[in-house]
Amino acid sequence: MNTIIARFRIIPGKEADAEAAIKKQAAAVEAAEPGALAYIFNRNPKEPAEITVFEVYADDAAVAAHRATEHMAAFGALFGTIFDPGSVKIERQERVAGFSR
Amino acid sequence: MNTIIARFRIIPGKEADAEAAIKKQAAAVEAAEPGALAYIFNRNPKEPAEITVFEVYADDAAVAAHRATEHMAAFGALFGTIFDPGSVKIERQERVAGFSR
Repeated sequence: MNTIIARFRIIPGKEADAEAAIKKQAAAVEAAEPGALAYIFNRNPKEPAEITVFEVYADDAAVAAHRATEHMAAFGALFGTIFDPGSVKIERQERVAGFSR
Repeated sequence: MNTIIARFRIIPGKEADAEAAIKKQAAAVEAAEPGALAYIFNRNPKEPAEITVFEVYADDAAVAAHRATEHMAAFGALFGTIFDPGSVKIERQERVAGFSR
């Protein structure tokens, strides 16, 4: 079980583009990646530009498959036009216990 | 959809107690709370004392039900003997898009 928590900020003025890109990416992951068990984009209500993504993959192969998808390449190509690349923080986490459903 | 990200630190020397309490709590939530869609305790491999809990509830009623459970009361009563109460950080988040399964 591989868990990733990613954080980044929307560039001011790009809120609508960000929402569209996020929705498209989440739908593509859900449809095409059976090894992705959770893939959730959240917004901090107190800091609406701050996005936190919570990602859970079944195993290393599912992470590798995620990185190799066309939708990930498309999201990556758009990323720097919508989100501040300097704001990106990625944490890899290990599950101790719990579930998603 | 209500999302909560909670962070806290294990008191040094309490690692085994922490793991037991976490596993018991996660199992109780999974068994007794159909409105809890994800409830995942993670450990930062680089900082093993740092626990991050990712919690998703179907709605406000599911959050209220979670807080009213006996297992939550028991976990709360133990909490300060295992985890540093001064380290607790709780963020409420709003889902923009995504899924868990």
